[in-house]
This record gives sequence, C-alpha cells and structure tokens, in this order.
Amino acid sequence: MAGQTFVEKLFSLRTGRRVSPGEIVVVDVDVVYAQDGTAPLAIRVMREEFGVERVAKPDRTLFFIDHVSPSSNPDTSALHRLMREFAARHGIRLYDVGMGISHQVVFEEGWVVPGAVVVGADSHTVTGGAVGAFATGVGSTDAAAAMVSGRLWFRVPEAIRVWLRGSLSGPVLGKDVALKLLSILGSSGASYKSLEFWGDGVKSLSLASRLTIANMSVEMGAKNAYFPPDERVFEHLRNVGAKVPVRPIYPDPDAVYSDEIEVELDKVEPMVALPPNPSNAKPVTEVEGLEVDQVFIGSCTNGREEDFEAAARVLKGRKVHPRVRCIAVPASRRVYMNLLKRGIIDILVEAGCIVTHSTCGPCVGAHFGLLGPEEVGVFTTNRNFPGRAGHRSAKIILASPYTAAAAAVTGKLVDPRSLIRG
Amino acid sequence: MAGQTFVEKLFSLRTGRRVSPGEIVVVDVDVVYAQDGTAPLAIRVMREEFGVERVAKPDRTLFFIDHVSPSSNPDTSALHRLMREFAARHGIRLYDVGMGISHQVVFEEGWVVPGAVVVGADSHTVTGGAVGAFATGVGSTDAAAAMVSGRLWFRVPEAIRVWLRGSLSGPVLGKDVALKLLSILGSSGASYKSLEFWGDGVKSLSLASRLTIANMSVEMGAKNAYFPPDERVFEHLRNVGAKVPVRPIYPDPDAVYSDEIEVELDKVEPMVALPPNPSNAKPVTEVEGLEVDQVFIGSCTNGREEDFEAAARVLKGRKVHPRVRCIAVPASRRVYMNLLKRGIIDILVEAGCIVTHSTCGPCVGAHFGLLGPEEVGVFTTNRNFPGRAGHRSAKIILASPYTAAAAAVTGKLVDPRSLIRG
Repeated sequence: MAGQTFVEKLFSLRTGRRVSPGEIVVVDVDVVYAQDGTAPLAIRVMREEFGVERVAKPDRTLFFIDHVSPSSNPDTSALHRLMREFAARHGIRLYDVGMGISHQVVFEEGWVVPGAVVVGADSHTVTGGAVGAFATGVGSTDAAAAMVSGRLWFRVPEAIRVWLRGSLSGPVLGKDVALKLLSILGSSGASYKSLEFWGDGVKSLSLASRLTIANMSVEMGAKNAYFPPDERVFEHLRNVGAKVPVRPIYPDPDAVYSDEIEVELDKVEPMVALPPNPSNAKPVTEVEGLEVDQVFIGSCTNGREEDFEAAARVLKGRKVHPRVRCIAVPASRRVYMNLLKRGIIDILVEAGCIVTHSTCGPCVGAHFGLLGPEEVGVFTTNRNFPGRAGHRSAKIILASPYTAAAAAVTGKLVDPRSLIRG
Repeated sequence: MAGQTFVEKLFSLRTGRRVSPGEIVVVDVDVVYAQDGTAPLAIRVMREEFGVERVAKPDRTLFFIDHVSPSSNPDTSALHRLMREFAARHGIRLYDVGMGISHQVVFEEGWVVPGAVVVGADSHTVTGGAVGAFATGVGSTDAAAAMVSGRLWFRVPEAIRVWLRGSLSGPVLGKDVALKLLSILGSSGASYKSLEFWGDGVKSLSLASRLTIANMSVEMGAKNAYFPPDERVFEHLRNVGAKVPVRPIYPDPDAVYSDEIEVELDKVEPMVALPPNPSNAKPVTEVEGLEVDQVFIGSCTNGREEDFEAAARVLKGRKVHPRVRCIAVPASRRVYMNLLKRGIIDILVEAGCIVTHSTCGPCVGAHFGLLGPEEVGVFTTNRNFPGRAGHRSAKIILASPYTAAAAAVTGKLVDPRSLIRG
C-alpha cells in the first residue's frame, strides 16, 4: 500500500479510515474565523437561512475587524457593530480595529498549529499551512455551517510536491519564491490541490518566508499549503502557547503526488508580478526603470518583522522619492510594537514613509491607499488584478519588501541588489 | 481719534489709509493654501470660470493632501493626481499624504507669522491667529482668485476682546478654554468678528493651546482669531524660520471693541460639548457616566505634542477599555517623529491605541474611524454635528485629550481629574 501525502494522512486520521483524493469527508474543525467582510454575511446566513443562531465552539471561533479598519462609512460601522454584538452575545473572541490581520494573528497567537484543521472566511487562510496545519479559505455560508456545527465537509485534495533546495541569498525573500512558483504553475496550476513543500530548503526558510509562500499558494489555485513543521515552528509555539492540540503530521516518503516541482532557492532572483495577475511573474531585471507612484509594504503576505527589517535595510539613511507615497502597514499590533522597540518604525518614518496601524489597508482596495488613473503601485501584497486597489487603469506590481523599498527610494522598479547586498 | 483693534490696524497698514469695520478692502495675500477637498475645485474654477490658469505667487501657494489621505476611492485618487500635476506644473509646494494637516504644517514651517495675511480654502485656517496673523478660511472660488491675483477682498471685521486672566491648572488645556468660550458666545456670537485675545492669561498659555483656541474661534462664527505675538512665538519662528515677512501688530490700548468678555483660566474645568453643535458645552462633571465606543485623539484642533503628552499621562500604565477603539492621529509628520523620539507613541500603542500616519482622519468623517448607529465617540476635534463622523444617530462629544484619554481607559465620560492631578 502506497504512502500518503500530508493531506491524505490528515483526513485519514480525522475520519479513522484510509481516505483517497476525491473522497468527500466531514471532519471536526479546530478553529473557524471570519473577518469584517465575511462575518456579517455568516451571521446573516445563520439567522436567515439556517434559522439557528448558535456557535458550537465559542472558544475556537474568532472574528477580526481587519478589512475596513477602522470603518470608512456608516454602513460598515453598522456591520462592525453587528460583529461586536454577536461576539459578545456568544462569548467568541473579537480582534477589533488595529489588533491585526486575521492570518497573522492566528499565527502569532498559536491558533494555527501542526495538524490542526482551520477554516477562515477569507481566501488567504491558506497562510496557516506554513506551520503544518490544514488551513483553507471558505465562503461565508461554509463558515456559518462550521460555526454552528463545529464540523465541515471537504473533498480530499490531490497534492503537488514542491522540493525546495539550498537556501536564499541576497535581498531575496519568500515572496520571490512565491512569485517564482507562480511563474511555473500559473494561476490555476495547483487548483484544488494541496501544495506540499519538502526538501532541505525548507529548514533554511524563516517562518515569515514560509508564511508568505503558503499565503500565495491560493494564487496558484491551491486548496491549502503545507510546510513540514520543524524546530522553528515548535519553538514559536513554545513561546506563544498553542491554543489547540498540536498533532504534527508528515507525508510518507513514498506518498504519491500528482506532480513534483523543484525550486533551487540559491537561484531565486528578486521577482515582480505585473498585471493582470500574480502569475505574470518575472525577474525585476526584465522590467527595470518603470516609474512608480506609490509603494505599499504590508498585508498578510508581507507585513511581518522580517519584511520591515528588509525594507529598513534599503530605506535606512535614504529618503523616499518625492513622487512616491510609501505606505507601511504592520500586519499586527505585535509586529508594530516589535518594530517600535527595534527602532524600525523610526527608520521608516525618517525615510518619509507613512506608517499606519495594522489593517489590510491598500491590499483590499476598500478604504485607503487607492491608486489614481494610470498610476503605478508596487505592493508587497498577493493580488494585482486591475481595479483591485484603485482605478482600473492603475497598475499594481507585486514584489518583495526589498524590491518595494528600492522602488520607494528610486521612484522606479530597480533590482534591490543595486542598493543592498546580502 | 480712538485706537484700533488688531484687525483695523492690519488692514490700515495694508491699504495705507485708516479703515473702519464694515469697509471693503482689497489687500495683498501673503500665503494661500488649499486641501484635497478644495484645491481641485479651485483648479476647476480657475480653468472653467476664470479661463486663466495662473499662480501669481507660486512660492507662497501651498497644497495639502490631508483630508482623504491616503485616498479611499479611485475618484479621490484622480483628484489627488490632478493636484500633484497642477502643483508640479506651477512650481507650487504640495504636502502629500502623511506630511500633515494644513493648519498644523503652516504653523510648524513658519508660513503663518505675526502680521501676515493668510487665506486657506478650509474653515479652520483661523488657527493661524494663534501667532498674530490674520488667517481666515475662504471658499474655493476665493482661493482661486487669491491664487491667480495674489490679492483678495475683505470686509473689515468688528472685533470682540477676550480677556484671559490667570493660568490653567489641573488636566485642563486650551480645548477646555475654547469650549468654555463656546458656552458663553454660542455658535454665532462672534459672527464675522475678529476674536482678539488679551490679558495676562495669554502668556501663560502654550502655543499649542493658543492654536486650539484660535482653531475653534470659527465655531463661534469668528472671521479670524488673534493672539498678541510674544516671545514664545518669536522663539518658535527663530527655530523654524519664517517663510514670509514678520510684522507684529498689537491693538491700541484704547481700541474700540464691539464686546468684551473675560475668562478666568484658573476656573476653567474639563469641558465637553455634546451634540448637536460645539456650543452645547458644559463641564464634564455634568455628564459623567455616559458609555463610550470610540475615542479619537488628533485633528488640527488637538493633534499636537502637548495633546498626546496629555493623553499619555492618562494612558501610561493603563489599558484602553475593551469596548473602546482609541484612534490616535498626530497632526503632522513632525509631531509624529517627535512623539516617536519621546517614547509617547510607545505609550499609546502599549495602552491599546491605534496610531496612524498624520491625516484629518475621523474628524472629516470621510474615510476612516466612522461611528456606527447609536455609537458614542469622544473626539478631540472641533465639530460634533450629527452625521459628521458616521451614522446620523451616533453622538460625537468634543473634549480635550485629557478627557478623551480618560474616556478611553474607563469606557465612559469621566472627569480626568479623577485619574490624574495637575
């Protein structure tokens, strides 16, 4: 009998029988969360469609106000109020304005852990795969079902194995690896698959870089991402305290994958993705010189300490180009506090960045930092669809914090290796 | 021949003849500025109505992107772009996203100085009266006229003299003085008048508190405010460098005022203004206990170092009440930098505030920090009209940073003297 992938093993353990890709299973959900775009819908579904307002596991259900945060209009304010009232009534935890982006906070606070089943009413819930959880985004109706019942159905995914070899060098981060993968797999190359990372390269990657890569797996269509949990993950969990049981799962050596890909980390260059989608990725050297109006460093993709550390290495002692607005948004209050303590906020502000409280911000294009007609923005985010963050004629270019910061100081796309080494 | 008020003297000097209240004069304007709500209109007026696109004094014309900053929607982004292009074409200075609120920046950078005539396409331009300038808000059409011609007409105002006696004591600031004055004069008690401060109490007030009081003079209908420039003003100007000629003007001892009012600073208590307007002001002790959902510390009224210092005295070692969102927005990049250096940002964030880049923010109710239905906000801003910052059923209560911070930690209106002395 052949070995199993991570995701086959996980669902086999959860159902108590050997399952195969394509099967439908119903399993216990460890943690369910929703944000201010989706929680109000989930509440409505519960009330109006299910006709039952109940939360099966209030201590494992989380709400986040991170999308339009703080509210930009009275209607949204009313939805936020609805969330606060619902959360108070059912005793569920609400992370209010400024506390952080859901996917970062569930990582920071130990809500996603190895072997857990975590669903979030937000597509970038896949970020949690960085610690070896099965974490996936669901619609508001599914989130409501998971809240009410504590369980949810899944179709067991096939899996793709991504071998990571060696280690990154130069001003290159997980974001560049994600963009490299997108250039290989395209926007649907991993559709409904479990994207499972493996190989000696994994251990060389920081947790922040793993989170970035897992985060962007959904841009390739993946159902979930998976990094084998190692000592870095366990140390992190010892520090923050796991909120749900830790049950590490590793794929069998002879597991059967639908596809295998190899990425040599040493060869990954600074990458960018041009419109109209994240898979239109190429080395920045191919598009150097394009003028830039706005830079955004932040989001659940690249709003962690590692990311601002990288940006600060470029920005320290330099100034943001006069034409450029550079917006820096830490992904959580904890990130913000740590950056404050380390003097990194000072470096950013001194260089001319605006630094805001933690929110999804320009990434969701809902309430601030929107681009005007024909403007060009370099964003460390995950999606560059036309119109996502402003006018439809504006261009969003995805990049790492190194490349974004280099664009901020030069006013154009440049190879960050021209400003910084190592 | 009787003596003259500040405003009579100023216009007499500017016209070279003795003028009296009620006369129409046309005078040179030293500085004209506009913000992102008004500059695009001024540009349109110039192009479409005047048929001439010209800036008479580009080195004394300033644009600010402070209202919806950064932009919350593609249309606003396009207007910002229009401002940037116009500014670049005419060589005028544009203070872009995050640089600060116009009225604070013109003070900080020495654009408003004693004896100057400053017009801004924003009603709170009156703030500049704190340094002894004639500073007043104008509509976009007048701003366009001033930009094109370098001159503008005024009707010489009558004046009210406000005698300030003694000095403030306890957790009381200029904001409380302004609210006290509003409770005396009402919303139109100073309509089209020059509100001229005098007396031994002036020198006891910090520049920040004078700026707050001058700022709110427009809520009493005043055309302008005036504080006699003293050594604090001249020292400030030596530090920052005056950008236009300094010509201090003091009213004659026997000037004729239409009204005289006296305020004993020692007796000013912590004040609040309840809806529906700023003149509905009373001591906070009369309304203690009202529950609060959001606190906003910032704006051109109370977004200076003194204000956050006051808030930090309350917040240090305490936590923001779980029900309350506390939003802190420094009025300029310089304020933000100084707060960073002094560790005050740390105190605010540690207490649970969200701290953003400098912008008008919740005060303008345009893009963030809006209140939901029935919610109560304690704002350090200048206007509490229903619907200004969110749902029409929400209540905005105006207060000083001390009182606002006290509401943030207790979750209700309380006398800040119960939390802090002196």
